[in-house]
Amino acid sequence: MNIGENIYNLCNRLFPICRSITGAGVRETLRIINESILDTGNQLTIHEIPSGSTVFDWTIPKEWVIREAYIEDEYNNRIIDFKNNNLHVVGYSTPVDEWCDHEELLEHIYTQPDQPDVIPYVTSYYSERFGFCMSENMKNSLKSGRYHMYIDSELIEGSLTYADLVIKGEESKEILITSYVCHPSMADNECSGPALLAELIRFVSSMEKRRYSYRFVLEPESIGAIAYISQNLDQLKKNVFAGFNLSCVGDDNAYSVIETPDADTICDRVIKNALIGRPNTTYYSFLNRGSDERQYNAPGIAIPMISFCRSKYGTFPQYHTSDDNMDFVSPEGFMGSYEVLTNVILALENNYKYKSTVLCEPQLSRRGLSKPISQKGIYGNEMNYRHFLAFSNGKNDLIDIANKINIPAAELLFYAQKLEEEGLVEKF
Amino acid sequence: MNIGENIYNLCNRLFPICRSITGAGVRETLRIINESILDTGNQLTIHEIPSGSTVFDWTIPKEWVIREAYIEDEYNNRIIDFKNNNLHVVGYSTPVDEWCDHEELLEHIYTQPDQPDVIPYVTSYYSERFGFCMSENMKNSLKSGRYHMYIDSELIEGSLTYADLVIKGEESKEILITSYVCHPSMADNECSGPALLAELIRFVSSMEKRRYSYRFVLEPESIGAIAYISQNLDQLKKNVFAGFNLSCVGDDNAYSVIETPDADTICDRVIKNALIGRPNTTYYSFLNRGSDERQYNAPGIAIPMISFCRSKYGTFPQYHTSDDNMDFVSPEGFMGSYEVLTNVILALENNYKYKSTVLCEPQLSRRGLSKPISQKGIYGNEMNYRHFLAFSNGKNDLIDIANKINIPAAELLFYAQKLEEEGLVEKF
Amino acid sequence: MNIGENIYNLCNRLFPICRSITGAGVRETLRIINESILDTGNQLTIHEIPSGSTVFDWTIPKEWVIREAYIEDEYNNRIIDFKNNNLHVVGYSTPVDEWCDHEELLEHIYTQPDQPDVIPYVTSYYSERFGFCMSENMKNSLKSGRYHMYIDSELIEGSLTYADLVIKGEESKEILITSYVCHPSMADNECSGPALLAELIRFVSSMEKRRYSYRFVLEPESIGAIAYISQNLDQLKKNVFAGFNLSCVGDDNAYSVIETPDADTICDRVIKNALIGRPNTTYYSFLNRGSDERQYNAPGIAIPMISFCRSKYGTFPQYHTSDDNMDFVSPEGFMGSYEVLTNVILALENNYKYKSTVLCEPQLSRRGLSKPISQKGIYGNEMNYRHFLAFSNGKNDLIDIANKINIPAAELLFYAQKLEEEGLVEKF
Repeated sequence: MNIGENIYNLCNRLFPICRSITGAGVRETLRIINESILDTGNQLTIHEIPSGSTVFDWTIPKEWVIREAYIEDEYNNRIIDFKNNNLHVVGYSTPVDEWCDHEELLEHIYTQPDQPDVIPYVTSYYSERFGFCMSENMKNSLKSGRYHMYIDSELIEGSLTYADLVIKGEESKEILITSYVCHPSMADNECSGPALLAELIRFVSSMEKRRYSYRFVLEPESIGAIAYISQNLDQLKKNVFAGFNLSCVGDDNAYSVIETPDADTICDRVIKNALIGRPNTTYYSFLNRGSDERQYNAPGIAIPMISFCRSKYGTFPQYHTSDDNMDFVSPEGFMGSYEVLTNVILALENNYKYKSTVLCEPQLSRRGLSKPISQKGIYGNEMNYRHFLAFSNGKNDLIDIANKINIPAAELLFYAQKLEEEGLVEKF
Repeated sequence: MNIGENIYNLCNRLFPICRSITGAGVRETLRIINESILDTGNQLTIHEIPSGSTVFDWTIPKEWVIREAYIEDEYNNRIIDFKNNNLHVVGYSTPVDEWCDHEELLEHIYTQPDQPDVIPYVTSYYSERFGFCMSENMKNSLKSGRYHMYIDSELIEGSLTYADLVIKGEESKEILITSYVCHPSMADNECSGPALLAELIRFVSSMEKRRYSYRFVLEPESIGAIAYISQNLDQLKKNVFAGFNLSCVGDDNAYSVIETPDADTICDRVIKNALIGRPNTTYYSFLNRGSDERQYNAPGIAIPMISFCRSKYGTFPQYHTSDDNMDFVSPEGFMGSYEVLTNVILALENNYKYKSTVLCEPQLSRRGLSKPISQKGIYGNEMNYRHFLAFSNGKNDLIDIANKINIPAAELLFYAQKLEEEGLVEKF
Repeated sequence: MNIGENIYNLCNRLFPICRSITGAGVRETLRIINESILDTGNQLTIHEIPSGSTVFDWTIPKEWVIREAYIEDEYNNRIIDFKNNNLHVVGYSTPVDEWCDHEELLEHIYTQPDQPDVIPYVTSYYSERFGFCMSENMKNSLKSGRYHMYIDSELIEGSLTYADLVIKGEESKEILITSYVCHPSMADNECSGPALLAELIRFVSSMEKRRYSYRFVLEPESIGAIAYISQNLDQLKKNVFAGFNLSCVGDDNAYSVIETPDADTICDRVIKNALIGRPNTTYYSFLNRGSDERQYNAPGIAIPMISFCRSKYGTFPQYHTSDDNMDFVSPEGFMGSYEVLTNVILALENNYKYKSTVLCEPQLSRRGLSKPISQKGIYGNEMNYRHFLAFSNGKNDLIDIANKINIPAAELLFYAQKLEEEGLVEKF
């Protein structure tokens, strides 16, 4: 089984679970992910923060327990049922068990009128209410009559769950990779991010030599990131030099990046490098942020983090609807994202500054690094050697040079290492 | 009466007066302007600099007195008459009272051959001569015969007149607003600038709280600006941090700005901000300068000043001709310019640096600053709150943040103040 | 005879000589060039570095002696003969005197299949072999049969030859101008560069006043530049502040520049200035380098050097083939290159910082530097005076100002000097 299929299959296991920012769904999700990486010898540590705890400007909300939810008509036909699709209930709905007329029912129904076939994803975490989601077409087909609104839910004094794992490297400096585990049954947004993150744990675990430490975090979006930062601020600020948030990484469309506020950090440099040669990539300014990069890049925190997507969240019609299902993601889509992220890791791990050890150009041909005969139009890869040497001035690092040459650093690395073996450059 | 009409009406009162760089017309213009702002409690102070005074590299010229000017034919028909249009006489013409033939007459006639219907505006301040201006068509219709050239003018030992007004604020730092009062009967260039300046005196006078002081200056173009700077150099260099020259501000066309030499000052930043959302604005480099921004930005003076126009001087066919009349300006045209300039003032007055007081994003929904329910496609103005907070890092000021978000600072200010009231940002 | 013709004629004298990176052809080339500049009183000094000498990472190769080379068929018909075109033998071919069959012959034949009519230019300096070059069409017309491969050559313990000339100026700071003398009979690449360089020696020799010193270097490409730098490193690093490599400077096409690594040196600034008004100039990044700018800009050397071309080497079909003959260059082509380079020299010689001596604009009209009467649409060259003054702030130098105004510095100089004479600016 190839890696793309592996990620796809994990995504598929996570898909059916009803998640919210707290509760059993989050815990079950994290359990499955840990199960999937048992072979690596590494496990995410699960943390619980009690309801009512203060995290910066916020309070951890009550934990949401959801058991059953449906609407039935006066003939006991179930119009919608949470069992069929967990998007049918507004996230954090309070319990209800009432018969009402058609008009009152409509006050509790949410639809996406511009996409009349889909069930929208709606939540109300911090304002107590109950509600049902259905397609606009279904709503329009409802006749007058009596309806039974039923939600068996509870808001209890529980806790918010998150998970992290630090895999140590030679240096205490950390690369942070995050995604979030609070969305119910939507595939790209957001079963894809956690599934890719699990595979990246496998990749990092298998590295023979790790220069940097790696911190993996899975958290409920927003409140979870705030809670995590609140509980780990000193460590994060001291160690993390580059953060990557994964969201919507499983579809087949072109890549998207949400840049840091000034678009000038190592994260911005390395992701642009890793995406060289991937056509139609879109770089969105920080004005278009929307996921946990909001918290990490916030003033006072200032941990540089880009968000990495294929289709950017919020821009595709399937987003936050029942159409974001397992048909919208694919093994190929996952594989591309995996390649980009592992190229990011390779680039960062090897991002030394390089300095040429000889004056003027060295003689490559006697080292077998260029062809011995000169005729126009006949060049091999020798230009990569030449370019690397030309920019190895002790100020440029691998990513600088790769960006100048316009090739991925992970690819240029081969040439850098060869030149280092030949003693023609030194790194520091 | 709305403000645009108010400015238009003042422009209309100034239009008929024959102005030049010295003389009665300038004084009458300043008198009318002072009359128009009597209600504000503020008055421009009138200054006179005697002819022959040295101002930097220049000498204040003699004062021009013009009483009458015409050309009549041998049948005593007046071909042109200064009474009908004061553009008919070349500015600073010396007196003449001579009969001549058609050929000699032509030597003293100025036309705009590429616009055969208009009377051009011509001056000769520093080289004594006399001359008449008429349309190319009129010139071509003149028959051979005798003509009487008559100009009743004098160049006397008088003075050059300018006016200024400083309205004090909490700080001694000043915002400088200038325009010029040396052009005869042309509406946009330049009765419009002084008329708008008068209305801005009313606006500044009415501000409940003024952080900055405001310096308003009306002067003859070039020589007047040089004289003014020469007589006020220390004060200007010590206090003025942003200058705005008003020229051609009454027509209905898109806005234009002449940038400072390096286009990097607070003037450039704030005018670009105030013009966000105004379509087709043209930014001209300093190479295209032509009004008093030339003197203020000169090496050794280096007071940053942009020029603000609707149609840029020199670029429209009516410019410096009899077609630049009251039909070319409008209350709507003035109103737009007034809005832009008052937005500039509001932006500068409130241009503090802002710093978020909380770590990570604050919870806006519990403060009523964002909607409590989350569904895609349903956003209010909450993004302005979020963006403002995201860039309130203690380094960006209001105009920086507004330029990043791409909205006028005067509009963003509402959100900044609300966040400040909530204690979520502090300014300094 | 005009200068363009003069350069063309010298190019024409150099064209027939068979050059390589060592040997008699280089010496004969340098002898002719010295003969051509006898009138200047300056002569290039000829240097020899023995075979086997170490120059940085390289070893000076054996000297190549080539006397005769041909292929004949079994009827003693000479298929190709070195006498007819010295491109027919692969550069640095070892001797051979063998009869072989058609199949073996083909192993030693080099063609340019995508240009079937031309003889390609092929060399093998550092890997011993022998070979013949011919057109693809000729190769395809060869029948089976016996062939006689004959090359009368030697690789001897000799030396590599280069030449230099320093013409002293008031300052010890040097402008370096280089080209190379290792290519056999190709006109644009590279008889043109040495021919233009000789004319620039004449120009510099004739300057009445020289602020800077000028270093002219002719060397075999690559190994020669490395050898030269190796033997003159301290002097070069101490004195040279701007380098210009001449290559392919005789054709009629638009100009090309290969920028320095960061495209930010005085060389980049001045060449861009000198090329203002020359349409369709192409600026190539350092990634497109290919001549001796590779060695001078290398890390550790870091002497800023741009390469100047008309058609850039490597981009035109005639490049490195027998079609790069005297028909591809022209007196007009040379003249344009000469004008650009002499403008570069004038710009650098006069590249002082300027500071206005008066506050505000000076009165140009009383100095006869602007017209005395003001009417729209009637301007002379006075804007050059005004622009020069406006940017003479003591920070900008002549080239800065000229680049801002977008005219060649050599042209702006007239205005700068006039203003200096009038005491309106001072330079330092």
